[in-house]
Amino acid sequence: LRRGATSRLRKIVNKTHGADLSILFRSLPLPDQRLLFDMIDDVEQKGILFSELDEDLFIELIDGMDPDAVVGILEAMPNDDVADLLNQLPEETASSLLERMKKEGSDEVEDLMRFDKDTAGGIMNTDFIALNQEITAKEAIEQIQKEFADVEMPFYLYAVDEYGNLVGVCSLRQLVVVKPYTPLKAFMTTEVLSVQTHMDQEEVAKLVARYDILAVPVVDDSNRLVGIVTVDDVIDIFREEATEDILKMAGVGEEFVETKSIFKSTRIRLPWLFASCLGGIFAFYVIGHFEDSLSRITYLAAFIPVIMGMGGNIGTQSSTIVVRGLATGRLHIRDIWSVVGKELAIGFILGMVYGLLIGSVAQLQYSTLMLALAVCLAVVCSMSVAALVGSCVPMLLARLNIDPAVATGPFVTTSIDIISVYFYFSIATGFLGI
Amino acid sequence: LRRGATSRLRKIVNKTHGADLSILFRSLPLPDQRLLFDMIDDVEQKGILFSELDEDLFIELIDGMDPDAVVGILEAMPNDDVADLLNQLPEETASSLLERMKKEGSDEVEDLMRFDKDTAGGIMNTDFIALNQEITAKEAIEQIQKEFADVEMPFYLYAVDEYGNLVGVCSLRQLVVVKPYTPLKAFMTTEVLSVQTHMDQEEVAKLVARYDILAVPVVDDSNRLVGIVTVDDVIDIFREEATEDILKMAGVGEEFVETKSIFKSTRIRLPWLFASCLGGIFAFYVIGHFEDSLSRITYLAAFIPVIMGMGGNIGTQSSTIVVRGLATGRLHIRDIWSVVGKELAIGFILGMVYGLLIGSVAQLQYSTLMLALAVCLAVVCSMSVAALVGSCVPMLLARLNIDPAVATGPFVTTSIDIISVYFYFSIATGFLGI
Repeated sequence: LRRGATSRLRKIVNKTHGADLSILFRSLPLPDQRLLFDMIDDVEQKGILFSELDEDLFIELIDGMDPDAVVGILEAMPNDDVADLLNQLPEETASSLLERMKKEGSDEVEDLMRFDKDTAGGIMNTDFIALNQEITAKEAIEQIQKEFADVEMPFYLYAVDEYGNLVGVCSLRQLVVVKPYTPLKAFMTTEVLSVQTHMDQEEVAKLVARYDILAVPVVDDSNRLVGIVTVDDVIDIFREEATEDILKMAGVGEEFVETKSIFKSTRIRLPWLFASCLGGIFAFYVIGHFEDSLSRITYLAAFIPVIMGMGGNIGTQSSTIVVRGLATGRLHIRDIWSVVGKELAIGFILGMVYGLLIGSVAQLQYSTLMLALAVCLAVVCSMSVAALVGSCVPMLLARLNIDPAVATGPFVTTSIDIISVYFYFSIATGFLGI
Repeated sequence: LRRGATSRLRKIVNKTHGADLSILFRSLPLPDQRLLFDMIDDVEQKGILFSELDEDLFIELIDGMDPDAVVGILEAMPNDDVADLLNQLPEETASSLLERMKKEGSDEVEDLMRFDKDTAGGIMNTDFIALNQEITAKEAIEQIQKEFADVEMPFYLYAVDEYGNLVGVCSLRQLVVVKPYTPLKAFMTTEVLSVQTHMDQEEVAKLVARYDILAVPVVDDSNRLVGIVTVDDVIDIFREEATEDILKMAGVGEEFVETKSIFKSTRIRLPWLFASCLGGIFAFYVIGHFEDSLSRITYLAAFIPVIMGMGGNIGTQSSTIVVRGLATGRLHIRDIWSVVGKELAIGFILGMVYGLLIGSVAQLQYSTLMLALAVCLAVVCSMSVAALVGSCVPMLLARLNIDPAVATGPFVTTSIDIISVYFYFSIATGFLGI
């Protein structure tokens, strides 16, 4: 990219899809990004690139660009993407860009920016086709060719009444198949699934996925059609939500790989680890409580890691199964007893298996039957309790309307650690009479 | 559902979407399922229900149903869903059902069943619209109305040459807009993104998501158009893959919430826990090695849980960030040094914070400066090493083409446990001169 060969490069760039260019972009320094960006001829490709770039990159890139050029690109983009981009910018920059945009477009964008970005209103697109239910199929086709030529993907044609209220839906294909003078309302489907502007984006995504539809219309409080959420946005929502859940489970809340600053990452992780630290200090006092036993039989300490590890791992397994089940809708809160019962049974069986195994190792090493029995029993208890806690906690959180993904994080692991250690020392002290 | 009121119930059932009925179905006993199923009038709704049911439920339900009735439903379903269903059945049942189906449909289904179910061939749909590139827009519309009236969703119209090779694509909308006697090849887009039958489904899904398209054509080795993968399947793939990754991270490989049998769940988790068990036993020998130190200062044992816990938690955080980054394509293997470096820095900083905190607790409790220093240093080492291991291992696995989601499971946690314990005792022994 350094010098020369620009005309050949320009050709290649213009044959490449914006989505692919964005990947290349990330690995280039800023001056090269600018050069490359200027080489793109198609304003729509520039728009796709804008949408694909990460927040930081986008802000750097447009900083110093001619505002009119930026506006030109924004106007070629879908309104919902423009609203998302502008929301990332400092307020001043955003409003100065909005002022330069054509009236009609900027009004729509401003409307979109008012919605919370995680709701149907925040993700909807305002480029949709709404036709009056009274017009005929022929008129509809003419109108689509004239007025709606710029609609990105004409998934469905929505029929509205005189007040703009959603009353029906039909497909482009139906228009072509029926007799030209049939009015829309004669053949449209009147049972239309729609969502309200304030519905959570995850709910919207689940609806679209459940009914295998390409788009869902969004209506305001008075049933007026205001936008559509399309299937390509739904895909993004699912990927985003899955990532969020996974990161939450590991206790890295809102950190992403892209989070470049070490300081920011550290700050995000700090409170999560604090829970684990408090738990650890608690476990330390629990063990301190049994110091007498320990001083008599020091090798009791050697079994701490294995007992804590086994409990922690099965607890994570149980809670992951439950959290994911709740997230995908395969599991309902009302199934709580059957799920918890099942997990408890699995925890007990696996506890017996590994309890016997680890107990045998203890027996081999120290030839003290009571110690071996105590270790065995401690493993059984620790694993059963861990499975119980790991499955109960996310269920209870879900019932309290708290996101259960949080539960698999340090909280569950830490409480299991403390319980395991306590059981172990209590049992050992009892069995060995110390 | 018990008795009476059937006619009203029948009305409700027939107004409910198949996808919603499937949720109700799961919570009903078999006889009620049969009753409910018989109430559905629309054969297409029955088909949707078939696709939505879990494997076990489906097998139970069709067992004892009239085979001709089953075939009638299968013929109303998209071919790719039929192939998936039949693949779940015992071979004999599947082939007897295939024999009863209409020749044309059953051939297509049989073709689909040959493909590996995780490839483009396995998930593709054979109901697509392929038009000869030589015909005109008017002829194309006529052909769509006559021959392709049963195509589920006419996303794109594919243009093929005389050998059935994919040569172009256009939209239903373009057909309506151009002059009626223009031949397809004059206005179709000739740059078509297509995938080969053996491409992995995750790759296919990523392509569809990246280019925001509704369907991607699938071609065989000789570029002959054989099917399409539609966006609704892509959504399912992403959800499925996210769930798989999450469960793998927790070491519950192929277990799902739906896995009803306790025995099966136990068997799936057993080997994963074995890794953790072996690690625990190893840690036991490490501690045994330091028994002398322990017997002199027994309260050394009290810090084992907190040191192990802090290391384990930050290790999980690091590996989760890396695994998810690799899965979403935000992170590349070539970034290994910058990522590992960043994680190491975060581990070190957080190690210092919590090392000082936990060291202070030690100092308060035992007033032995050397012990407090040893604990502090052990936490720093343990957390730094954990961040290092947690970020390195998934990167290395990815480079070796092993699924990195496996790495966050018990393997990473266990090795971090052992390393933490070893560091702790080595440092303590050195500092306290025991």
